[in-house]
Amino acid sequence: MSIGASGRDRSAFFADLIAAGLFVPSGVEGVYGRGGRFEEIRAAIEALITRRTINVDPERMAFPPLLPKEQLEQIGYLSSFPHLAGTIFSFNGDDADALELERRVANGEDWSSLQHQTALALIPAACYPVYPALASRGPLPVGGVTVDLGGSYVFRNEPSSDPARLQMFHQREMVRLGEPGEVLDWRDAWARRAVEILGELGLDASADLASDPFFGRSGTMLARSQRSQALKLEVLVSITAEEPTAVASFNAHREHFSSVFDLKQSNGEQAHTACVGFGLERITLALLSRHGLDAAAWPNDVSAQLWSA
Amino acid sequence: MSIGASGRDRSAFFADLIAAGLFVPSGVEGVYGRGGRFEEIRAAIEALITRRTINVDPERMAFPPLLPKEQLEQIGYLSSFPHLAGTIFSFNGDDADALELERRVANGEDWSSLQHQTALALIPAACYPVYPALASRGPLPVGGVTVDLGGSYVFRNEPSSDPARLQMFHQREMVRLGEPGEVLDWRDAWARRAVEILGELGLDASADLASDPFFGRSGTMLARSQRSQALKLEVLVSITAEEPTAVASFNAHREHFSSVFDLKQSNGEQAHTACVGFGLERITLALLSRHGLDAAAWPNDVSAQLWSA
Repeated sequence: MSIGASGRDRSAFFADLIAAGLFVPSGVEGVYGRGGRFEEIRAAIEALITRRTINVDPERMAFPPLLPKEQLEQIGYLSSFPHLAGTIFSFNGDDADALELERRVANGEDWSSLQHQTALALIPAACYPVYPALASRGPLPVGGVTVDLGGSYVFRNEPSSDPARLQMFHQREMVRLGEPGEVLDWRDAWARRAVEILGELGLDASADLASDPFFGRSGTMLARSQRSQALKLEVLVSITAEEPTAVASFNAHREHFSSVFDLKQSNGEQAHTACVGFGLERITLALLSRHGLDAAAWPNDVSAQLWSA
Repeated sequence: MSIGASGRDRSAFFADLIAAGLFVPSGVEGVYGRGGRFEEIRAAIEALITRRTINVDPERMAFPPLLPKEQLEQIGYLSSFPHLAGTIFSFNGDDADALELERRVANGEDWSSLQHQTALALIPAACYPVYPALASRGPLPVGGVTVDLGGSYVFRNEPSSDPARLQMFHQREMVRLGEPGEVLDWRDAWARRAVEILGELGLDASADLASDPFFGRSGTMLARSQRSQALKLEVLVSITAEEPTAVASFNAHREHFSSVFDLKQSNGEQAHTACVGFGLERITLALLSRHGLDAAAWPNDVSAQLWSA
């Protein structure tokens, strides 16, 4: 094993995770089962973030990892990130079509033409269902609303051999909706708190301006604009040696979602929104990379921080 | 509110769940967010099943709700349940294709032809990833293996106005792999334990022979054969007035999965497998239907059973 301050060799780390039963290969890159010891660490990180929350009276909600594809259309996701979206197709044929499907499967033929698009897509960001749900209640109360979504599965269509780049993973997600200044302060306070929490876990974490992986040529301009407005912050840590990995992000949306769903403040003005997401599998991997694959042998101060109830 | 021993009126119950913030509509039938109080009950049921487990030294694993579509092909899912499967499609085009996608979305046109089938499908049953994972280790140890998958999201393509029929829901799932008699005994013992647990929660639960919703004309024969061999048991309770709802199932697969993935016992013979799944959202709904929407006002013995740590 070659553990360095700058992170593990990617393929060696991946092989070690599998040998230790922490990751279980599925046959598709970026889709892995996780062993019990991985899940214990992930749950402990989730609980630690809850203990160290800055949220005041959050409302708890949970959503399955599917949303109406209409929402991806409404919010512009298919323009900005067409390559990352996953939509759900299904069979809607009769007995004869079912036999044809069976025949193609048996012969190893393409059966995609026997699948039809449903109304559903996989959720690319855990916060998306919150905006229409809150807007349907009418204007926000005075002081706005903070929503705690817990650990939520999200999907990105990006098969990769990097063990830290999963196609489906948990975001520990929170959303703030309300007055522009309050929303931005909350976003910034969470970025500071994240650096604090991750530092206490022995990770060399820093917050920095970032941009989303917008698609294509026009995406470069969108990314530049996002950076110049400081809309996205990320906290980066070393997991593999190749490059630092973002393990948490802090996103100011201004009026992006509230204008789509007509979400108002109590005074009738357009609400602002922001969201904060911690990548639970990535933080788990960062700890395994930094402190070793055997959590029982981690430094005492890290264990005390992580496992104290 | 019209609560009866035989369950609530379906549409009135659904409306009450939404009004109470227990369900959050998404715009698509069978896909709902859940409020914090719903999630507390669901988590308590999951913990109760864990406390009352009959599993001996289970191995804990967790899988994301996606699996290689190749596995659905291998195990015959697309022959038996083509109508329930969901496969993941995505965009794999260039800048020009992305502009065309954007144009179609803006004009409300069909954009399904700009989606291509990926290697992934949604998981229809939480146990499916276990069989290839265990088979890859070689023959099972003496005494076989019990796997505890916790609460796992699964998908069924069946939009419905029945609040108890979700397209994506949590199975509290366990799997037993080993010697035929031991596997069948474990399956039957869990069915008895399930009736016990649900009875203690004040639900009028009974176990019965059942069959899966096989597709089409040939499906009728498959269902009859499944019943005659007692391969599937279900525990039914009243949630809505229309009909009793299955809230847990207990499935003997004999050599179905082990023959596909070449899963052997320690003596070299083909392993048998069985799985047990509790429908966590359905049990939560059964309790809300039976005891009322305010969990704080539930009978003392039910609360003691559910919330004791």
